[in-house]
Amino acid sequence: MDQPTMVDGWAARDANGLLSPFSFPLRAKGEEDVVVKILFCGICHSDLCTIKNEWGNAKYPVVPGHEIIGVVTDVGSSVARFAAGDKVGVGYIASTCRDCPNCRDGFENYCAGLVPSFNATLPGADGATVHGGFAELTVVHERYVVRIAAPTTNLERVAPLLCAGVTVYCPMRRLGLDRPGLHLGVAGLGGLGHLAVKFGKAFGVKVTVISTSPCKEAEAVERLGADAFLLRTNAQQMKAAAGTMDGIIDTVSAVHDLTPLITLLRTHGKLVPVGSPGKPVQLALYPLQSGGKSVAGSMIGGMREMQEMIDFAVEHGVAAEVEVIGMEDINDAMKRLEKGDVRYRFVIDVANTIARAR
Amino acid sequence: MDQPTMVDGWAARDANGLLSPFSFPLRAKGEEDVVVKILFCGICHSDLCTIKNEWGNAKYPVVPGHEIIGVVTDVGSSVARFAAGDKVGVGYIASTCRDCPNCRDGFENYCAGLVPSFNATLPGADGATVHGGFAELTVVHERYVVRIAAPTTNLERVAPLLCAGVTVYCPMRRLGLDRPGLHLGVAGLGGLGHLAVKFGKAFGVKVTVISTSPCKEAEAVERLGADAFLLRTNAQQMKAAAGTMDGIIDTVSAVHDLTPLITLLRTHGKLVPVGSPGKPVQLALYPLQSGGKSVAGSMIGGMREMQEMIDFAVEHGVAAEVEVIGMEDINDAMKRLEKGDVRYRFVIDVANTIARAR
Repeated sequence: MDQPTMVDGWAARDANGLLSPFSFPLRAKGEEDVVVKILFCGICHSDLCTIKNEWGNAKYPVVPGHEIIGVVTDVGSSVARFAAGDKVGVGYIASTCRDCPNCRDGFENYCAGLVPSFNATLPGADGATVHGGFAELTVVHERYVVRIAAPTTNLERVAPLLCAGVTVYCPMRRLGLDRPGLHLGVAGLGGLGHLAVKFGKAFGVKVTVISTSPCKEAEAVERLGADAFLLRTNAQQMKAAAGTMDGIIDTVSAVHDLTPLITLLRTHGKLVPVGSPGKPVQLALYPLQSGGKSVAGSMIGGMREMQEMIDFAVEHGVAAEVEVIGMEDINDAMKRLEKGDVRYRFVIDVANTIARAR
Repeated sequence: MDQPTMVDGWAARDANGLLSPFSFPLRAKGEEDVVVKILFCGICHSDLCTIKNEWGNAKYPVVPGHEIIGVVTDVGSSVARFAAGDKVGVGYIASTCRDCPNCRDGFENYCAGLVPSFNATLPGADGATVHGGFAELTVVHERYVVRIAAPTTNLERVAPLLCAGVTVYCPMRRLGLDRPGLHLGVAGLGGLGHLAVKFGKAFGVKVTVISTSPCKEAEAVERLGADAFLLRTNAQQMKAAAGTMDGIIDTVSAVHDLTPLITLLRTHGKLVPVGSPGKPVQLALYPLQSGGKSVAGSMIGGMREMQEMIDFAVEHGVAAEVEVIGMEDINDAMKRLEKGDVRYRFVIDVANTIARAR
């Protein structure tokens, strides 16, 4: 048996969450696998939570990263959809059972056998460790790879679409919040929120950003193209906007009362909390019932939805606002991310910096 | 000006909630009004809450009752849809603004100007008091009256459909839980729950009753025709049923954790809490998000939906299981209702007993 290829990556070794160089063997390529040289990798808040073991599920050493943009370098013998040289993306999903109703229906994101693309182990007795995108290379089953069609400039701005983007795109599509003339609220203006604004505008809906930070107004309207801004702490503004929104993508991760947002919804409106408060929230039922309103859960997207989202984004020029960093800056970036000090997503220029950072 | 007709009714005078005979002037009939002689009136839990002022909004004296079956005795000059002798129903809605988007779209139940059919006052400077169905007669705008098509036997069993029935029917229809082959859960087997079972079976869906009372199993399956019974306190049963239901009509009014019910839902499943816990409930977001599931609010139904529901019920023989009482038994019935001691709805035989009870 051949010696495995060794991959340079960066990993956290314990719950202090500090990342440092870490070398690991590349998983052997199977017939249906695609080998991807990683160009860029976005940093998602769940990478931070995982390396600090905030969810209690860290399997150290953890190589995080699940907003991966790369170029195909090799494919397994039965792979027909991809060839060397293709620009591709890999998101949160590294594998699923491929046999359950969810997988059959294109909702791999809800498969009970979902294996994330980092901090994970593939099923089976000899299950390989799955390391994320803070590394030179990755091997992924072709089903969980999406194609990035030309133009392929600004690929660093595409990376955050693979998790943050699909997380907001999917519920907007599935819940019918993508129809011109509708009014969409976006609560919280971070990595997810700024992409919800951009997708909303690309769909042709009216977008209002809802935030507790007055300083976000100019950003929301002037830089991101939102139609309006609503200061959540301003009771008068909130009252005037009551009953005006068809849906709200709520990206706020802190535990918060959903009622003020529900009040903003029209009859049959939908509130979609995509943040992860970690603790249950309080839900008053009457405000939901008295307007036929819903709280709708949604988590990333299925692979068909992922490809559709990327194709739509490329066609309509939807891309993240990013701050590109080198691999050597990762620990500083994590510290800044923890304080919310990024507009709007860090993306690591993996290919150009991992060698020098080693 | 003519002397107004005086109506015999039963009213609560204060928060002890005891009902006693009460005479009040019948509202003058307007051009678009229908005068209804009340035959039967169901007793809803919200009648009980109101007369005891549990929601702090009682306007004593309160004549409760909003599941009204009657016969038209007179109509206003511009009423074409109804004539004397018609059997009709009146539910929770006595009036709405008739001008807002909700009213225009047939969702009068979500009109901000909704006036209930009891414990209320019509808008305007000379707004008349609105008394409910524990009385001989009522005057209602024709828009809020539904026709009961023949056969008109067993009208006492139709009365509870006007509030309890439409409350469960409406979300099942609107959320697509009415398609044969789907699996519907019904949590709680009281006035609302038993009608959810019956409508579910009439739609052709598989119905599983979810209850904390083992003694309800025989009732659910043998008397009401449910397909299965799930004991909520049995962890093994709950685990085996996880991920199997397309929707759940949750009729439980006590404050309860929604997560065990959410766990029973399939991907994209919908939990519809129609009870009124009075206090906010805890909602863990992850179980919603990880299955693309929703908590969907719903409150009674619009007038188009009301008529559709009644027509469907008459056609498919859906009717409530009731215990018919005389007006003189109302205080005993309220006490029993408070303890949940009724299968499944009290209905007052108003026309035949109000005179003798006076």
